[in-house]
Amino acid sequence: MVHAVIPFRPTNPKTRLSCILSQEEREKFALKMLSDVITTTGSACCRTVILCTEDISVEGAETVVKPLGLNEALNEYLAETDDPVLIIMSDIPLATKESVVDMVKTGSDIAIVPGRGGGTNAIFVRDPKKFHVDFYGASFLDHLNICHDAGLSVDIVDSFRLSTDIDEKEDLVEIFLHSKGESRHFLENIGVKMSVEKGRVGVHRHAHEETP
Amino acid sequence: MVHAVIPFRPTNPKTRLSCILSQEEREKFALKMLSDVITTTGSACCRTVILCTEDISVEGAETVVKPLGLNEALNEYLAETDDPVLIIMSDIPLATKESVVDMVKTGSDIAIVPGRGGGTNAIFVRDPKKFHVDFYGASFLDHLNICHDAGLSVDIVDSFRLSTDIDEKEDLVEIFLHSKGESRHFLENIGVKMSVEKGRVGVHRHAHEETP
Repeated sequence: MVHAVIPFRPTNPKTRLSCILSQEEREKFALKMLSDVITTTGSACCRTVILCTEDISVEGAETVVKPLGLNEALNEYLAETDDPVLIIMSDIPLATKESVVDMVKTGSDIAIVPGRGGGTNAIFVRDPKKFHVDFYGASFLDHLNICHDAGLSVDIVDSFRLSTDIDEKEDLVEIFLHSKGESRHFLENIGVKMSVEKGRVGVHRHAHEETP
Repeated sequence: MVHAVIPFRPTNPKTRLSCILSQEEREKFALKMLSDVITTTGSACCRTVILCTEDISVEGAETVVKPLGLNEALNEYLAETDDPVLIIMSDIPLATKESVVDMVKTGSDIAIVPGRGGGTNAIFVRDPKKFHVDFYGASFLDHLNICHDAGLSVDIVDSFRLSTDIDEKEDLVEIFLHSKGESRHFLENIGVKMSVEKGRVGVHRHAHEETP
Protein backbone atom coordinates (compact mmCIF):
# COMPACT_ATOMS: atom_id res chain seq x y z
CA MET A 1 0.00 0.00 0.00
CA VAL A 2 1.33 3.43 -0.94
CA HIS A 3 2.40 5.58 1.99
CA ALA A 4 1.43 9.21 1.43
CA VAL A 5 3.98 11.07 3.52
CA ILE A 6 3.27 14.72 4.30
CA PRO A 7 6.11 16.62 5.96
CA PHE A 8 4.77 19.17 8.43
CA ARG A 9 6.18 21.75 10.83
CA PRO A 10 3.39 23.20 12.99
CA THR A 11 5.15 26.19 14.56
CA ASN A 12 5.17 29.58 12.81
CA PRO A 13 4.52 28.26 9.28
CA LYS A 14 3.88 30.24 6.09
CA THR A 15 5.63 33.42 7.22
CA ARG A 16 5.10 35.00 3.78
CA LEU A 17 1.40 35.18 4.69
CA SER A 18 2.18 37.41 7.70
CA CYS A 19 0.87 40.41 5.77
CA ILE A 20 -2.66 39.04 6.03
CA LEU A 21 -2.68 36.36 8.78
CA SER A 22 -1.39 36.43 12.39
CA GLN A 23 0.93 33.66 13.58
CA GLU A 24 -1.95 31.87 15.32
CA GLU A 25 -4.04 32.13 12.14
CA ARG A 26 -1.17 30.88 10.01
CA GLU A 27 -0.78 27.86 12.28
CA LYS A 28 -4.49 27.08 12.04
CA PHE A 29 -4.54 27.70 8.29
CA ALA A 30 -1.55 25.40 7.75
CA LEU A 31 -3.45 22.66 9.62
CA LYS A 32 -6.51 23.22 7.42
CA MET A 33 -4.42 22.90 4.26
CA LEU A 34 -2.88 19.74 5.75
CA SER A 35 -6.38 18.38 6.37
CA ASP A 36 -7.36 19.06 2.76
CA VAL A 37 -4.32 17.13 1.54
CA ILE A 38 -5.05 14.25 3.96
CA THR A 39 -8.64 14.04 2.71
CA THR A 40 -7.31 13.77 -0.84
CA THR A 41 -4.61 11.16 -0.17
CA GLY A 42 -7.14 9.15 1.85
CA SER A 43 -9.63 9.25 -1.03
CA ALA A 44 -6.83 7.97 -3.29
CA CYS A 45 -6.49 4.96 -0.94
CA CYS A 46 -3.08 5.85 0.46
CA ARG A 47 -1.98 5.15 4.04
CA THR A 48 -1.38 8.75 5.10
CA VAL A 49 1.49 9.66 7.42
CA ILE A 50 2.26 13.13 8.78
CA LEU A 51 6.01 13.34 9.13
CA CYS A 52 6.19 15.95 11.84
CA THR A 53 8.78 17.73 13.96
CA GLU A 54 6.51 17.24 16.98
CA ASP A 55 3.59 15.01 17.97
CA ILE A 56 0.27 16.23 16.57
CA SER A 57 -3.06 14.53 16.05
CA VAL A 58 -5.00 15.06 12.81
CA GLU A 59 -7.96 12.97 11.67
CA GLY A 60 -7.30 10.61 8.80
CA ALA A 61 -3.55 10.24 9.27
CA GLU A 62 -1.02 8.77 11.63
CA THR A 63 1.87 10.91 12.85
CA VAL A 64 5.52 9.90 12.76
CA VAL A 65 7.71 12.28 14.77
CA LYS A 66 11.19 13.07 13.50
CA PRO A 67 12.65 16.26 14.99
CA LEU A 68 14.95 16.73 11.99
CA GLY A 69 15.31 18.95 8.93
CA LEU A 70 13.07 18.25 5.95
CA ASN A 71 15.62 16.27 3.92
CA GLU A 72 16.95 14.34 6.93
CA ALA A 73 13.48 13.34 8.13
CA LEU A 74 12.31 12.25 4.66
CA ASN A 75 15.49 10.34 3.83
CA GLU A 76 15.34 8.50 7.16
CA TYR A 77 11.71 7.62 6.41
CA LEU A 78 12.56 6.39 2.91
CA ALA A 79 15.41 4.24 4.24
CA GLU A 80 13.05 2.59 6.75
CA THR A 81 10.22 1.84 4.27
CA ASP A 82 9.65 -0.94 1.75
CA ASP A 83 6.29 0.15 0.30
CA PRO A 84 6.05 2.82 -2.39
CA VAL A 85 6.04 6.36 -0.96
CA LEU A 86 4.25 9.44 -2.22
CA ILE A 87 5.86 12.50 -0.66
CA ILE A 88 3.35 15.32 -0.90
CA MET A 89 3.59 18.81 0.52
CA SER A 90 1.04 20.05 3.05
CA ASP A 91 0.51 23.39 1.29
CA ILE A 92 -1.13 22.16 -1.92
CA PRO A 93 -4.81 22.14 -0.90
CA LEU A 94 -5.99 22.10 -4.55
CA ALA A 95 -4.77 18.50 -4.87
CA THR A 96 -7.53 16.19 -6.09
CA LYS A 97 -8.02 12.44 -5.94
CA GLU A 98 -7.58 12.28 -9.74
CA SER A 99 -4.25 14.10 -9.68
CA VAL A 100 -2.91 11.92 -6.85
CA VAL A 101 -4.10 8.71 -8.52
CA ASP A 102 -2.36 9.83 -11.72
CA MET A 103 0.91 9.97 -9.77
CA VAL A 104 0.72 6.64 -7.96
CA LYS A 105 -0.39 4.73 -11.07
CA THR A 106 2.61 5.95 -13.08
CA GLY A 107 4.46 3.34 -15.09
CA SER A 108 7.79 4.92 -14.14
CA ASP A 109 10.04 4.46 -11.10
CA ILE A 110 9.46 8.06 -10.07
CA ALA A 111 6.63 10.53 -10.72
CA ILE A 112 7.35 14.14 -9.92
CA VAL A 113 5.31 17.35 -9.86
CA PRO A 114 7.24 20.60 -10.14
CA GLY A 115 6.13 23.61 -8.17
CA ARG A 116 6.38 27.07 -9.63
CA GLY A 117 9.93 28.38 -9.59
CA GLY A 118 11.72 25.03 -9.66
CA GLY A 119 10.51 23.46 -6.43
CA THR A 120 9.04 19.98 -5.97
CA ASN A 121 5.47 19.73 -4.74
CA ALA A 122 5.01 15.96 -4.83
CA ILE A 123 7.14 12.97 -5.71
CA PHE A 124 6.15 9.31 -5.97
CA VAL A 125 8.92 6.82 -5.24
CA ARG A 126 8.24 3.21 -6.19
CA ASP A 127 11.28 1.80 -4.40
CA PRO A 128 12.24 4.11 -1.54
CA LYS A 129 15.55 2.33 -0.93
CA LYS A 130 16.83 3.56 -4.32
CA PHE A 131 16.07 7.27 -3.94
CA HIS A 132 16.79 10.19 -1.64
CA VAL A 133 15.35 13.68 -1.61
CA ASP A 134 17.14 17.02 -1.81
CA PHE A 135 14.63 19.77 -1.15
CA TYR A 136 15.33 23.51 -1.09
CA GLY A 137 16.62 25.50 -4.04
CA ALA A 138 16.01 24.12 -7.52
CA SER A 139 14.83 20.82 -6.08
CA PHE A 140 12.96 19.84 -9.24
CA LEU A 141 16.19 19.80 -11.23
CA ASP A 142 18.08 18.21 -8.33
CA HIS A 143 15.54 15.40 -8.16
CA LEU A 144 15.77 14.80 -11.91
CA ASN A 145 19.56 14.55 -11.53
CA ILE A 146 19.25 12.11 -8.63
CA CYS A 147 16.96 9.93 -10.77
CA HIS A 148 19.35 10.11 -13.71
CA ASP A 149 22.33 9.10 -11.57
CA ALA A 150 20.39 6.21 -10.04
CA GLY A 151 19.08 4.99 -13.42
CA LEU A 152 15.45 5.59 -12.41
CA SER A 153 12.80 6.38 -15.03
CA VAL A 154 10.85 9.58 -14.39
CA ASP A 155 7.32 10.71 -15.21
CA ILE A 156 6.87 14.48 -14.95
CA VAL A 157 3.21 14.91 -14.04
CA ASP A 158 1.46 17.92 -15.58
CA SER A 159 -1.05 19.20 -12.99
CA PHE A 160 -1.91 22.80 -12.21
CA ARG A 161 -3.63 21.69 -9.01
CA LEU A 162 -0.58 19.85 -7.68
CA SER A 163 1.82 22.54 -8.89
CA THR A 164 0.02 25.28 -6.98
CA ASP A 165 1.57 25.71 -3.53
CA ILE A 166 0.19 28.38 -1.26
CA ASP A 167 2.98 30.65 -0.05
CA GLU A 168 1.96 34.25 -0.63
CA LYS A 169 -1.12 36.41 -0.33
CA GLU A 170 -1.86 36.30 -4.06
CA ASP A 171 -1.79 32.48 -3.97
CA LEU A 172 -4.88 32.57 -1.74
CA VAL A 173 -6.87 33.59 -4.82
CA GLU A 174 -6.36 30.09 -6.22
CA ILE A 175 -8.05 28.58 -3.15
CA PHE A 176 -11.14 30.77 -3.67
CA LEU A 177 -11.19 30.01 -7.39
CA HIS A 178 -10.59 26.27 -7.29
CA SER A 179 -11.27 24.76 -3.84
CA LYS A 180 -14.23 24.07 -1.61
CA GLY A 181 -12.14 22.48 1.16
CA GLU A 182 -11.40 23.29 4.78
CA SER A 183 -8.71 25.83 4.03
CA ARG A 184 -11.17 27.91 2.01
CA HIS A 185 -13.78 27.76 4.76
CA PHE A 186 -11.19 28.83 7.31
CA LEU A 187 -10.26 31.88 5.25
CA GLU A 188 -13.91 32.81 4.73
CA ASN A 189 -14.63 32.44 8.44
CA ILE A 190 -11.94 34.93 9.42
CA GLY A 191 -13.11 37.45 6.84
CA VAL A 192 -10.68 36.87 3.97
CA LYS A 193 -12.52 37.22 0.66
CA MET A 194 -11.76 37.24 -3.01
CA SER A 195 -12.29 40.55 -4.78
CA VAL A 196 -12.25 41.68 -8.39
CA GLU A 197 -11.09 45.27 -8.73
CA LYS A 198 -10.01 47.10 -11.84
CA GLY A 199 -10.18 43.83 -13.73
CA ARG A 200 -7.69 42.04 -11.46
CA VAL A 201 -8.50 39.33 -8.96
CA GLY A 202 -7.11 39.63 -5.44
CA VAL A 203 -7.94 38.89 -1.82
CA HIS A 204 -8.77 41.32 0.93
CA ARG A 205 -9.72 40.99 4.55
CA HIS A 206 -13.10 42.17 5.71
CA ALA A 207 -12.59 42.56 9.47
CA HIS A 208 -9.17 44.24 9.49
CA GLU A 209 -8.64 46.19 6.31
CA GLU A 210 -4.95 46.30 5.59
CA THR A 211 -3.16 49.54 4.96
CA PRO A 212 -1.89 49.55 1.38
CA MET B 1 -11.26 20.06 -38.14
CA VAL B 2 -10.58 22.03 -34.99
CA HIS B 3 -9.49 25.62 -35.55
CA ALA B 4 -6.78 26.59 -33.07
CA VAL B 5 -7.22 30.36 -32.84
CA ILE B 6 -4.39 32.35 -31.27
CA PRO B 7 -5.13 36.03 -30.62
CA PHE B 8 -2.03 38.15 -31.14
CA ARG B 9 -1.10 41.82 -30.94
CA PRO B 10 2.42 42.34 -32.27
CA THR B 11 3.13 45.91 -31.12
CA ASN B 12 4.64 46.58 -27.67
CA PRO B 13 3.55 43.29 -26.07
CA LYS B 14 4.43 41.95 -22.61
CA THR B 15 5.14 45.31 -21.03
CA ARG B 16 5.65 43.68 -17.64
CA LEU B 17 8.87 42.22 -19.06
CA SER B 18 10.24 45.73 -19.70
CA CYS B 19 12.54 45.32 -16.67
CA ILE B 20 14.59 42.76 -18.58
CA LEU B 21 13.71 43.11 -22.30
CA SER B 22 13.59 46.14 -24.60
CA GLN B 23 10.50 46.78 -26.69
CA GLU B 24 12.15 45.30 -29.78
CA GLU B 25 13.17 42.21 -27.78
CA ARG B 26 9.69 41.86 -26.30
CA GLU B 27 8.20 41.94 -29.80
CA LYS B 28 10.61 39.25 -31.01
CA PHE B 29 10.12 37.18 -27.85
CA ALA B 30 6.33 37.34 -28.20
CA LEU B 31 6.69 36.00 -31.76
CA LYS B 32 8.90 33.16 -30.51
CA MET B 33 6.31 32.20 -27.90
CA LEU B 34 3.66 32.36 -30.62
CA SER B 35 5.78 30.04 -32.78
CA ASP B 36 6.07 27.54 -29.92
CA VAL B 37 2.30 27.51 -29.51
CA ILE B 38 1.80 27.12 -33.28
CA THR B 39 4.19 24.16 -33.35
CA THR B 40 2.15 22.55 -30.59
CA THR B 41 -1.30 23.14 -32.09
CA GLY B 42 0.02 21.92 -35.44
CA SER B 43 1.34 18.72 -33.86
CA ALA B 44 -2.13 18.24 -32.34
CA CYS B 45 -3.55 18.36 -35.91
CA CYS B 46 -5.39 21.65 -35.56
CA ARG B 47 -5.81 24.18 -38.37
CA THR B 48 -3.96 27.07 -36.74
CA VAL B 49 -5.14 30.66 -37.19
CA ILE B 50 -3.44 33.76 -35.83
CA LEU B 51 -6.19 36.26 -35.05
CA CYS B 52 -4.19 39.43 -35.35
CA THR B 53 -4.68 43.17 -35.17
CA GLU B 54 -2.47 43.53 -38.26
CA ASP B 55 -1.20 41.34 -41.07
CA ILE B 56 1.75 39.17 -40.07
CA SER B 57 3.27 36.04 -41.54
CA VAL B 58 4.33 33.17 -39.29
CA GLU B 59 5.19 29.66 -40.46
CA GLY B 60 2.63 26.98 -39.69
CA ALA B 61 -0.40 29.26 -39.39
CA GLU B 62 -2.69 31.42 -41.47
CA THR B 63 -3.44 34.95 -40.33
CA VAL B 64 -6.90 36.47 -40.01
CA VAL B 65 -6.79 40.23 -39.48
CA LYS B 66 -9.37 41.84 -37.21
CA PRO B 67 -8.34 45.27 -35.95
CA LEU B 68 -10.59 44.94 -32.89
CA GLY B 69 -10.32 44.38 -29.16
CA LEU B 70 -9.67 40.85 -27.91
CA ASN B 71 -13.28 40.00 -27.07
CA GLU B 72 -14.73 41.64 -30.17
CA ALA B 73 -12.29 39.88 -32.53
CA LEU B 74 -12.82 36.46 -30.94
CA ASN B 75 -16.59 36.76 -30.78
CA GLU B 76 -16.74 37.82 -34.42
CA TYR B 77 -14.57 34.79 -35.31
CA LEU B 78 -16.78 32.44 -33.30
CA ALA B 79 -19.93 33.79 -34.96
CA GLU B 80 -18.41 33.16 -38.42
CA THR B 81 -17.22 29.59 -37.73
CA ASP B 82 -18.96 26.21 -37.77
CA ASP B 83 -16.06 23.94 -36.81
CA PRO B 84 -14.99 23.51 -33.18
CA VAL B 85 -12.60 26.24 -32.01
CA LEU B 86 -9.73 26.03 -29.56
CA ILE B 87 -8.87 29.54 -28.39
CA ILE B 88 -5.34 29.42 -27.03
CA MET B 89 -3.20 32.29 -25.81
CA SER B 90 0.11 33.08 -27.50
CA ASP B 91 2.03 33.39 -24.21
CA ILE B 92 1.86 29.79 -23.01
CA PRO B 93 4.97 28.31 -24.66
CA LEU B 94 5.01 25.31 -22.28
CA ALA B 95 1.92 23.93 -24.03
CA THR B 96 2.46 20.36 -25.23
CA LYS B 97 0.74 18.22 -27.83
CA GLU B 98 -0.61 16.00 -25.02
CA SER B 99 -2.16 18.89 -23.12
CA VAL B 100 -3.79 20.31 -26.27
CA VAL B 101 -5.09 16.88 -27.36
CA ASP B 102 -6.57 16.45 -23.85
CA MET B 103 -8.58 19.61 -24.45
CA VAL B 104 -9.91 18.91 -27.93
CA LYS B 105 -10.88 15.32 -27.10
CA THR B 106 -13.02 16.40 -24.13
CA GLY B 107 -16.45 14.84 -23.87
CA SER B 108 -17.93 18.17 -22.78
CA ASP B 109 -19.23 21.14 -24.77
CA ILE B 110 -16.47 23.34 -23.40
CA ALA B 111 -12.99 22.59 -22.03
CA ILE B 112 -11.29 25.41 -20.16
CA VAL B 113 -7.85 25.96 -18.67
CA PRO B 114 -7.57 28.58 -15.95
CA GLY B 115 -4.50 30.76 -15.77
CA ARG B 116 -3.06 31.79 -12.44
CA GLY B 117 -5.10 34.52 -10.80
CA GLY B 118 -8.43 33.74 -12.44
CA GLY B 119 -7.61 34.27 -16.10
CA THR B 120 -8.36 31.92 -18.99
CA ASN B 121 -5.39 30.50 -20.91
CA ALA B 122 -7.22 28.22 -23.32
CA ILE B 123 -10.81 27.33 -24.08
CA PHE B 124 -12.19 24.68 -26.44
CA VAL B 125 -15.62 25.43 -27.88
CA ARG B 126 -17.38 22.55 -29.61
CA ASP B 127 -20.15 24.68 -31.10
CA PRO B 128 -18.89 28.25 -31.53
CA LYS B 129 -22.36 29.59 -32.31
CA LYS B 130 -23.46 28.83 -28.73
CA PHE B 131 -20.67 30.59 -26.85
CA HIS B 132 -19.02 33.96 -26.54
CA VAL B 133 -15.87 34.98 -24.70
CA ASP B 134 -15.41 37.62 -22.01
CA PHE B 135 -11.71 38.04 -21.36
CA TYR B 136 -10.11 40.45 -18.88
CA GLY B 137 -10.68 40.35 -15.13
CA ALA B 138 -11.81 37.09 -13.57
CA SER B 139 -12.45 35.61 -17.00
CA PHE B 140 -12.27 32.02 -15.74
CA LEU B 141 -15.31 32.59 -13.53
CA ASP B 142 -17.02 34.68 -16.21
CA HIS B 143 -16.59 31.86 -18.73
CA LEU B 144 -18.01 29.31 -16.28
CA ASN B 145 -21.03 31.58 -15.83
CA ILE B 146 -21.51 31.97 -19.58
CA CYS B 147 -21.47 28.16 -19.93
CA HIS B 148 -23.93 27.77 -17.07
CA ASP B 149 -26.35 30.30 -18.56
CA ALA B 150 -26.12 28.65 -21.99
CA GLY B 151 -26.57 25.13 -20.58
CA LEU B 152 -23.15 24.01 -21.81
CA SER B 153 -21.24 21.24 -20.02
CA VAL B 154 -17.72 22.20 -18.93
CA ASP B 155 -14.51 20.25 -18.45
CA ILE B 156 -11.92 22.13 -16.36
CA VAL B 157 -8.59 20.85 -17.63
CA ASP B 158 -5.86 20.43 -15.02
CA SER B 159 -2.55 21.29 -16.70
CA PHE B 160 0.37 23.18 -15.21
CA ARG B 161 1.86 23.64 -18.66
CA LEU B 162 -1.28 25.26 -20.10
CA SER B 163 -1.91 27.28 -16.93
CA THR B 164 1.53 28.88 -17.05
CA ASP B 165 1.38 32.16 -18.94
CA ILE B 166 4.53 34.23 -19.26
CA ASP B 167 3.91 37.75 -18.06
CA GLU B 168 6.64 38.69 -15.60
CA LYS B 169 10.36 38.26 -15.19
CA GLU B 170 10.00 35.39 -12.68
CA ASP B 171 7.78 33.51 -15.15
CA LEU B 172 10.78 33.20 -17.48
CA VAL B 173 12.20 30.66 -15.02
CA GLU B 174 9.48 28.23 -16.08
CA ILE B 175 10.67 28.40 -19.70
CA PHE B 176 14.20 27.44 -18.68
CA LEU B 177 12.93 24.67 -16.41
CA HIS B 178 10.35 23.12 -18.71
CA SER B 179 10.84 24.12 -22.37
CA LYS B 180 13.28 23.47 -25.16
CA GLY B 181 11.40 25.60 -27.68
CA GLU B 182 12.15 28.72 -29.69
CA SER B 183 11.31 31.12 -26.87
CA ARG B 184 13.94 29.52 -24.67
CA HIS B 185 16.56 29.69 -27.41
CA PHE B 186 15.75 33.33 -28.00
CA LEU B 187 16.28 34.18 -24.33
CA GLU B 188 19.54 32.24 -24.23
CA ASN B 189 20.78 33.97 -27.38
CA ILE B 190 20.33 37.44 -25.90
CA GLY B 191 22.08 36.45 -22.66
CA VAL B 192 19.15 35.72 -20.34
CA LYS B 193 20.01 32.78 -18.11
CA MET B 194 18.55 30.89 -15.20
CA SER B 195 20.44 31.22 -11.94
CA VAL B 196 20.20 29.54 -8.54
CA GLU B 197 21.24 31.87 -5.75
CA LYS B 198 20.69 31.47 -2.02
CA GLY B 199 18.51 28.47 -2.76
CA ARG B 200 16.10 30.39 -5.00
CA VAL B 201 15.78 30.10 -8.73
CA GLY B 202 15.70 33.27 -10.81
CA VAL B 203 16.79 34.69 -14.14
CA HIS B 204 19.49 37.21 -14.83
CA ARG B 205 20.90 38.79 -17.93
CA HIS B 206 24.50 38.22 -18.84
CA ALA B 207 25.21 41.07 -21.24
CA HIS B 208 23.53 43.94 -19.38
CA GLU B 209 23.53 43.23 -15.66
CA GLU B 210 20.51 44.92 -14.16
CA THR B 211 20.79 47.17 -11.19
CA PRO B 212 18.99 45.57 -8.27
